[in-house]
Amino acid sequence: MIKKFLPLLEAVRGKCPLVHHITNYVTVNDCANITLAIGASPIMADAIGEAADIAAISQAVVLNMGTLNERTVPSMIAAGLTAKSKGVPVIFDPVGAGASKLRNDTCQMIIQEIKPDVIRGNISEIRFVAGLSTQTKGVDASIADAAGTEQSEAFAKSTAAKLGCVIAITRSVDVVSDGKLTYLIENGNAGMSRITGSGCMCTSLVGSFCGANPASLLEACTCAIAVMGIAGEMASEAAENYGTSTFRTAIIDAVSRIDTATFEKRAKILISAK
Amino acid sequence: MIKKFLPLLEAVRGKCPLVHHITNYVTVNDCANITLAIGASPIMADAIGEAADIAAISQAVVLNMGTLNERTVPSMIAAGLTAKSKGVPVIFDPVGAGASKLRNDTCQMIIQEIKPDVIRGNISEIRFVAGLSTQTKGVDASIADAAGTEQSEAFAKSTAAKLGCVIAITRSVDVVSDGKLTYLIENGNAGMSRITGSGCMCTSLVGSFCGANPASLLEACTCAIAVMGIAGEMASEAAENYGTSTFRTAIIDAVSRIDTATFEKRAKILISAK
Amino acid sequence: MIKKFLPLLEAVRGKCPLVHHITNYVTVNDCANITLAIGASPIMADAIGEAADIAAISQAVVLNMGTLNERTVPSMIAAGLTAKSKGVPVIFDPVGAGASKLRNDTCQMIIQEIKPDVIRGNISEIRFVAGLSTQTKGVDASIADAAGTEQSEAFAKSTAAKLGCVIAITRSVDVVSDGKLTYLIENGNAGMSRITGSGCMCTSLVGSFCGANPASLLEACTCAIAVMGIAGEMASEAAENYGTSTFRTAIIDAVSRIDTATFEKRAKILISAK
Repeated sequence: MIKKFLPLLEAVRGKCPLVHHITNYVTVNDCANITLAIGASPIMADAIGEAADIAAISQAVVLNMGTLNERTVPSMIAAGLTAKSKGVPVIFDPVGAGASKLRNDTCQMIIQEIKPDVIRGNISEIRFVAGLSTQTKGVDASIADAAGTEQSEAFAKSTAAKLGCVIAITRSVDVVSDGKLTYLIENGNAGMSRITGSGCMCTSLVGSFCGANPASLLEACTCAIAVMGIAGEMASEAAENYGTSTFRTAIIDAVSRIDTATFEKRAKILISAK
Repeated sequence: MIKKFLPLLEAVRGKCPLVHHITNYVTVNDCANITLAIGASPIMADAIGEAADIAAISQAVVLNMGTLNERTVPSMIAAGLTAKSKGVPVIFDPVGAGASKLRNDTCQMIIQEIKPDVIRGNISEIRFVAGLSTQTKGVDASIADAAGTEQSEAFAKSTAAKLGCVIAITRSVDVVSDGKLTYLIENGNAGMSRITGSGCMCTSLVGSFCGANPASLLEACTCAIAVMGIAGEMASEAAENYGTSTFRTAIIDAVSRIDTATFEKRAKILISAK
Repeated sequence: MIKKFLPLLEAVRGKCPLVHHITNYVTVNDCANITLAIGASPIMADAIGEAADIAAISQAVVLNMGTLNERTVPSMIAAGLTAKSKGVPVIFDPVGAGASKLRNDTCQMIIQEIKPDVIRGNISEIRFVAGLSTQTKGVDASIADAAGTEQSEAFAKSTAAKLGCVIAITRSVDVVSDGKLTYLIENGNAGMSRITGSGCMCTSLVGSFCGANPASLLEACTCAIAVMGIAGEMASEAAENYGTSTFRTAIIDAVSRIDTATFEKRAKILISAK
């Protein structure tokens, strides 16, 4: 079962897909570095004068609304529509959905107008995406939204079916579904919530894997999230006697060193019975 | 004396306050990571369409004018006014005040319209805040503004009394005053001036402590600055054989590991006789 | 021959030039930290309301179009023109030239209106600058543009003569020319292409050296690029058992520790026979 994911990792390094990001300025450097670490090529370009041009030469487009503003939202729309018209996968990270009217409106607009191929978020964000009422506390998942893995599986599957895309919920056990098949990923480390950018970097890996494997978005997304979780585990070992900033460095280090043997040995991917 | 600060540190980790930042794009990642490291939750949001909404759900608002521009200044005003109307503490970092007319005008506007609860800066910036003539060289303290600790104590106290807020001047011996009581902090390390973001990260810690301890802003601010200084000392030991970038990593590592025992052992906080 | 470069390094640390950057938000933190590491003082300021004011008090201006947008391009023009009018060296990094019409137009406008003193880029970017047709793949050098060192020497020299500025092409063997004399630099490490910001950081070092040595721009630029290459070599040794993020940290560490003895021992600078 794990073996079938190995070619997806090899494809990223073999093809070096160009991954266009319109993303936030908080974690953008980490996103660029983790994209390079996995073997893809990042380009960050958010001006309305070039967003569509850059999307047109890219193999994946990542839209992350972490620090959205009135100037960059139209660029996200332009890049997303261009990508869709060319069959380039669009990955959407609805950072902080539920935290403000601007984020809520933007989130809905991107989903309705662009119809992203993959949406990755925490449970609070995906609950907002699904149209359920939600309580958000800034950009972190609300405790009130925490639910067991079983509930998350059914929820991811129904939301994916409803929106016609891959839904990825990253939590203690990650859940990825296209509405028909649902994968669970049991990799990861609790320290990832003590640094900024774990989610954003994960989305950049999703973009890298989808860019290199456009015909297998569900598996590409699953593989990317497993890589992020494995990197968190490896980083936790490397940073044991240090602290959160060394842990962050060690995550990107781990991604730059991960090979198919390490992936095969460490990945814990299951098929959901739901 | 040090013991009375320990509950302030425990409060940050117990309450996990949401700290809204409108800050510069140079050091924003470090600000987010140090806020997480101390146990608070950062959110960066500078769009005019959500600045007030985000401020309204936050426990502290940090305004840092390091890379101010025509788009973000109105967002700072909107966030600041909303915070003040709800009793949420506003912390202002007048980065580079004195270096350009835009910075000078913005600094004065923020002080007059918002009346921040805490203003933290280097001696050159606080001299500008106080309305004294100043010579600035970019964003670093001017040598011409260097003065002995005694002069700084009286200056911080009178400026705090004049503006009705807490004034924090970070220098070799840090000075924090509310116009009545003045603390001196003898922690820190000279290496902190060889990395970008020492001041900004310190202000983020001030926001975290004020958000968790809104009834004790003077002590919260003092405690935050002591934590930053202690982290600088610990980082200097950890990075001794490396260089400035490892030192930066080690500062955030230290903040993520600091506990009340370490704080009690290392903090050097005095009450000024002025 | 190497000895004549040593005073240029000492001048950076002795004069601590203020280096005004209008640069991208991806690598801006690294640019600020490497500028501090070499001993200069960075200021990032891109608002139209202060760009000219800040340029006027600086010793060098770095314009980097990595994440250019409609708001910052006019600020680049204002800062560049002010710098030129005062004899302050302007260093231009045409990141991603060739990747979009916006970048192409901006690149040509900056070259024609400002006439930068130094232009540093990869071979694809400099081919665009020279007016040759080019194939670009995002922000990384196109394989189709790879050429032998000999061709690059002649190309750098003729482009420098045509534009009347110093041209620096960073590649396996770096080439720097003012149209009359051409230096080759054989320092560096292949790992530098696996992190974001190698090029941007190099340009910040060029700004630092030019700011401290405005009468010797060709040698200042050459020395800066040698420092970057040496730092890459030292970082490669330090990060051998880690990964790309530790390598990035180690580059800035190395720059913060490099002294004239290390430079003299490691620098591999040749004069081209072309």
